[in-house]
Amino acid sequence: MTSEVLSIGNEVLSGRTLDTNFQFLARLLEGAGARVAGHQAVPDEARAIAAALEQAFARADLVVTTGGLGPTPDDLTVAAVAQALGLKTRLDEAVLQALEERWNRVIGRGTMPANNRQQALVPEGATVWPNPVGSAPGILVAQGAKRLVLLPGVPEEMRALARDFLAPLARELSGTTVEYAVVRTVGIAESVLEERLHDLADLVGGAWVAYLPGLGGVDVRVALPANDGVAVAARVRQVVLERAGEYVYSTDDRSLEQVVLDLLVERKWMLAVAESCTGGLLGGRITDMSGASRAFAGGVICYSNDAKVALCGVRPETLEAHGAVSAEVARELATGVAQRFGATCGIGVTGIAGPDGGSPEKPVGTVHVAAATPDGVHHRHLKLFGNRAQVRERSVTAALELLRRRVLGLPETSPGAMFTPPPVTP
Amino acid sequence: MTSEVLSIGNEVLSGRTLDTNFQFLARLLEGAGARVAGHQAVPDEARAIAAALEQAFARADLVVTTGGLGPTPDDLTVAAVAQALGLKTRLDEAVLQALEERWNRVIGRGTMPANNRQQALVPEGATVWPNPVGSAPGILVAQGAKRLVLLPGVPEEMRALARDFLAPLARELSGTTVEYAVVRTVGIAESVLEERLHDLADLVGGAWVAYLPGLGGVDVRVALPANDGVAVAARVRQVVLERAGEYVYSTDDRSLEQVVLDLLVERKWMLAVAESCTGGLLGGRITDMSGASRAFAGGVICYSNDAKVALCGVRPETLEAHGAVSAEVARELATGVAQRFGATCGIGVTGIAGPDGGSPEKPVGTVHVAAATPDGVHHRHLKLFGNRAQVRERSVTAALELLRRRVLGLPETSPGAMFTPPPVTP
Repeated sequence: MTSEVLSIGNEVLSGRTLDTNFQFLARLLEGAGARVAGHQAVPDEARAIAAALEQAFARADLVVTTGGLGPTPDDLTVAAVAQALGLKTRLDEAVLQALEERWNRVIGRGTMPANNRQQALVPEGATVWPNPVGSAPGILVAQGAKRLVLLPGVPEEMRALARDFLAPLARELSGTTVEYAVVRTVGIAESVLEERLHDLADLVGGAWVAYLPGLGGVDVRVALPANDGVAVAARVRQVVLERAGEYVYSTDDRSLEQVVLDLLVERKWMLAVAESCTGGLLGGRITDMSGASRAFAGGVICYSNDAKVALCGVRPETLEAHGAVSAEVARELATGVAQRFGATCGIGVTGIAGPDGGSPEKPVGTVHVAAATPDGVHHRHLKLFGNRAQVRERSVTAALELLRRRVLGLPETSPGAMFTPPPVTP
Repeated sequence: MTSEVLSIGNEVLSGRTLDTNFQFLARLLEGAGARVAGHQAVPDEARAIAAALEQAFARADLVVTTGGLGPTPDDLTVAAVAQALGLKTRLDEAVLQALEERWNRVIGRGTMPANNRQQALVPEGATVWPNPVGSAPGILVAQGAKRLVLLPGVPEEMRALARDFLAPLARELSGTTVEYAVVRTVGIAESVLEERLHDLADLVGGAWVAYLPGLGGVDVRVALPANDGVAVAARVRQVVLERAGEYVYSTDDRSLEQVVLDLLVERKWMLAVAESCTGGLLGGRITDMSGASRAFAGGVICYSNDAKVALCGVRPETLEAHGAVSAEVARELATGVAQRFGATCGIGVTGIAGPDGGSPEKPVGTVHVAAATPDGVHHRHLKLFGNRAQVRERSVTAALELLRRRVLGLPETSPGAMFTPPPVTP
């Protein structure tokens, strides 16, 4: 069973917007047993949409579009699709009612502009999927044995609809009730991990193995057979833990921050963070999780040296002797911020995210992270690769991973092994 | 003059790699006057490459491929293209020599594997562009008046070759340079903005107008004609400012945080932030900008009430009387954190991001932001829509926008008008 994705929108085609929707959909579709045979980005033009649709149907059983379902005149996916397939459109009363309720709830005044009624138009015979987080519904159209799915382009809305409706549909069409064993790793390059696990597919009966790299690490995802899923999942975990166990932080799909939070909650420990170069991103990532307050007291964004001293208890002599970007300052940040917040543990991050501020001794990418726990203070010197955003994201990941290892009493990995290899793009 | 991009590689198609190359190429091509008419992602298969190439040539004057030029057996772009176009390939001696020199310089031992010689194969009659940062050269093939360009998939190599060779080629072929006028707004729904500006295209001589919504607001982008760009850009700004000026924060493509930072730097003001529900995201967004330290002193992530009192100077009586999520606490956070950091201005954010913690009086999405400047303390009560991540992101945007308005001495918009409408699906 094959699938194809069409990203519809001038903003994607002109490069104004980075198309992250395609990657999300491709992973979801491949995961549901629907191999992605093609992807096209298409402008907001009826003829182009029709041509892309024709080509997609020629090679795929399931075609998914994203974008062009909004209320403005350049949103013409529904009209173009209906025309291309020779279908009429109808105003869906349930969708219209939901749009109006939403307008009243969210805007709370005036009447909904006539424009917005356009979002209630659906092709005749289509199935409507209600949008749990936005206005435009998802739309499913059957064409013989083939299926066409229209999704909005706003990422959160697309993702919610894809998870709730598209994934089950794709699994049903592919006949593989695919479930996965997911083992998440951090600090090991994709190519090295792949080498260590080169025979994993054979060891688990030819299951489909995928390596999914991201800024936070590499996930190993293995499709489980319907009949023997539990045993295969156990075997996957066993093999990965044997071969690369020191890099595994989660065997149950939890994020690194969730794993850390859960460990802290278990121990009834509270955490405080002192962030220099990450400027709040670490706190932001921890508080992405609902319930973070059970283990997160707060933090200080100590961008200036004054703040490091006044709010995090770093000694002026330490700054003077070692500079703000140093192991010593990271350590004092970690212990100082924990003390200031009356927390059980603390994290300190200080580094040079770039593009400016580097020197021969401390080039851009030099980052020190420290974690203070009741067992002592531990530190890592990172030499990170990448642009400012990447350095900052990887610093956050490294800090969380350091704390995880210290809480569990695990040995530290060697500094060279972690976070140095950039993900190589094919 | 139109162009099309083919991203070649199984890694892209399966979603394993996020395709950032396309966005880079699309921006470069559009900037060089070569409107991007289509984009396809194609697997490493000769037949699929040939089919995509045929389709691309049918609608574009310039076709650019990226990927599949490496030394491994699955890199078959050159062979597939030559076959599709009926061209023989030849071993380019200059490229071969460069490959061998590079092998000796970078690897420094052994002889270059025979595999790697594959990277010196080029179609007959092609022009070779030497790769300044890697091994695979860029390749230019003429097909009548049309042009085909093959670029590697490694981002740095693709970018270097595209900047050095592709951009001049595209400019030469198009004979124009497209530029844009961009006006950025916040706090107004896409559909409302579009209604207010419904005749904008006509008013500026039929230029191409796009509305680009995101969590941070809606951008209006207008393509400028080559002959009259400055005048049209001025007219666009004038019309948008007249019709929706109260929502415009930038007429020069700067982000909201950059605008705020620049305003502060101009005034030599320093900012400190106290974040409860946003948990560091506001600081994270400000420090995304290199040079933020010129106007950003730091902040406190005051997730607990203790931290609000101890580090931000909120009075326990205020917490007692009004609760942590209140106008009064937001105001005290803003003034207190500014004082604590010795900063000129402060921002306080406190709210209920959900999904838990709401009540009938203070439902999820209730957020109070306050900005303290030398002119006084200003506050807004937000009733935000969306999931946890959306509430948090919009709180950050609202806080930055409140500060911007206070720094500029602008009137506040009415609470109902701002940040309530979710960005409507494009």
